[in-house]
Amino acid sequence: MPRPTLASLAKELAVSRQTVSNVLNAPHRVKPATRRRVQAAIASAGYRPNAAARQLRTRRSMNLGLRLLPSSNGINGAILDRFLHALTEAAQRAGYRLTLFCADSDGDEIRQYQQLLDVAGLDGFILTSSTPNDPRTRWLQERGTPFAVFGRPWDGDGHVSSVDHPWVDVDGAAGTDSAVKMLLAQGHSKIGFLGWSAHSPVGADRASGWERAMREAGLGTHVSALRLEAEDTVAGGAAGAALLGLRGATAMVCSSDSLALGALETLRELTPATLLQGRSPGPTSHAAIVGFDDTPVAAALGLSSVAQPVEDAARHLIRVLTHEVACDGASAPNDLPALDSAAGVDVPPEKQILLTPHVVERIPLPLAAPGSG
Amino acid sequence: MPRPTLASLAKELAVSRQTVSNVLNAPHRVKPATRRRVQAAIASAGYRPNAAARQLRTRRSMNLGLRLLPSSNGINGAILDRFLHALTEAAQRAGYRLTLFCADSDGDEIRQYQQLLDVAGLDGFILTSSTPNDPRTRWLQERGTPFAVFGRPWDGDGHVSSVDHPWVDVDGAAGTDSAVKMLLAQGHSKIGFLGWSAHSPVGADRASGWERAMREAGLGTHVSALRLEAEDTVAGGAAGAALLGLRGATAMVCSSDSLALGALETLRELTPATLLQGRSPGPTSHAAIVGFDDTPVAAALGLSSVAQPVEDAARHLIRVLTHEVACDGASAPNDLPALDSAAGVDVPPEKQILLTPHVVERIPLPLAAPGSG
Repeated sequence: MPRPTLASLAKELAVSRQTVSNVLNAPHRVKPATRRRVQAAIASAGYRPNAAARQLRTRRSMNLGLRLLPSSNGINGAILDRFLHALTEAAQRAGYRLTLFCADSDGDEIRQYQQLLDVAGLDGFILTSSTPNDPRTRWLQERGTPFAVFGRPWDGDGHVSSVDHPWVDVDGAAGTDSAVKMLLAQGHSKIGFLGWSAHSPVGADRASGWERAMREAGLGTHVSALRLEAEDTVAGGAAGAALLGLRGATAMVCSSDSLALGALETLRELTPATLLQGRSPGPTSHAAIVGFDDTPVAAALGLSSVAQPVEDAARHLIRVLTHEVACDGASAPNDLPALDSAAGVDVPPEKQILLTPHVVERIPLPLAAPGSG
Repeated sequence: MPRPTLASLAKELAVSRQTVSNVLNAPHRVKPATRRRVQAAIASAGYRPNAAARQLRTRRSMNLGLRLLPSSNGINGAILDRFLHALTEAAQRAGYRLTLFCADSDGDEIRQYQQLLDVAGLDGFILTSSTPNDPRTRWLQERGTPFAVFGRPWDGDGHVSSVDHPWVDVDGAAGTDSAVKMLLAQGHSKIGFLGWSAHSPVGADRASGWERAMREAGLGTHVSALRLEAEDTVAGGAAGAALLGLRGATAMVCSSDSLALGALETLRELTPATLLQGRSPGPTSHAAIVGFDDTPVAAALGLSSVAQPVEDAARHLIRVLTHEVACDGASAPNDLPALDSAAGVDVPPEKQILLTPHVVERIPLPLAAPGSG
């Protein structure tokens, strides 16, 4: 089958070539009904203008950039994999591709932006974190480059600063709040919190949800003694959980699955002798540790964990970014709107959105329970 | 600082504009010494021809495609993350970018190739598996599109078929062979093998290394009884290990860390009563399970595992693919060779290469040892 051309499409639709060209390059000049008819025919005929020629004309590469952060933590890094898959799929459905790059620092990231805009003509970027006065977002905004951030722009006091760029985030405090409520429902009251020792607004957010739920349950007196920070590793979690156990915690909410895994192993040792004063762990001990991120490690060991809706976050990021790209291009005279995101242009997506996670409740594998020895 | 142009570079180097243009577009016309001098100046000046114009002229997008497979197994999927990072970094060092796409099937993957070649002008593809008579590799070869495969082209009999496309793979049999030798050195002789029930040449390869090492050690009599297939899950590993334990296995080599995790938990239960006839597990029991892929789960639990050199594989894939792209382009008159891969053009990389994995020996966390109850 010969590839459709501007001329063959015009003939088929009984319109002028100029009309087809206008639909591609200056859609505002075409009556909506005609525009929709031509767009539908273009989509179904699979008409593809030569990529490089189109890129020269439209200054649109249909290509979005993402810096691939090094996997700093093997266990929690798994959600990045899910995020990347969802991002790629959502971009593809919207007619965009995803280009990956690496950078050593924020400064290097900016140099990469520059090069990807100059050499590859990328249309916009997904950032996986941002801070107020972030040199990267400032650079992108000054240049007028569309971008969207996964993560809230925290200020130094742990508040979300009011910036006008698009962001999507997951409400970590709501996640730990839900985890506390689940443990309360299981009969626990001395519910500890095991967080990261490294300062991080994300970590502070997660701690705040635990504290809020404890105070709401009238358990505010436990808040100072039962909160502990540890290095974000399995060993850090094991040691931290031992100390929280000595302070009387019978359950723990953790900032990560690494910490939770360490805590789980410690709690299995502590449970019969220290906590339950008996040989047979009761059923409530099973779900007494809640991790964060619902990683494969948590699933494999039957560890409860707060699950981030990373797929929803990825889809929303693509929705809001492709909308920005379309609006950005709309100011240029020779614009080619993305055909498949026509609906998104009519109803602009929310520019800043906070998604709610949920707790996946699991029963740990009973394999290594001390009672079986 | 004004952006360098062809004219400013020529002036700076005291050569003609035509010479600079030839270095970019027809380097064979320029004397090697001059070519290297101009290339160095181009690189240090950061001269970047307009991307779209260059793409039109050179028919090179400096962009390589990779289909992102869905994460089928959370635990073992972690190595894909490392692979992707290494691939992105190696591509970037060679002056290329990586474009991700998704596909539902091999047929859909071919449609995506077509579109990515037509619309985005990609230079080549990385495939993460291939079979003989693979419709995807046939399509790419017929079209003359450069590609390289991570994985050997297995035929139906578990042999590697002789194809002439580039591939890189990891010698799974060498990995399980090393695992058996480690366990033999620890004093084990009844070493079981826990493989995948689903037919797979990769799984058969891993089983063959175990069998080879057992026969070489004069333990061929154990081979039929101590080999078991199970569903590639933690539960499958736990059940399979229980049966292998009843058959007298004191150590096990597994096709995946999912199976190994299940086996580890079972062995912890079996060790004192069934295997060692005592309460105190000896030191040899610690490393008696070896998984495959050295995932974060294995690292977190202190599980020994066969580590694939995925970073080396990724780097070699980029080396061989960018060489193919350069050779492919060299037949075109208006070619722009990749400046940074000049060395690679002089010394062609091996077209097909098998890398050797190694066993990471670990002591499992003693936290849930039955002796502590």
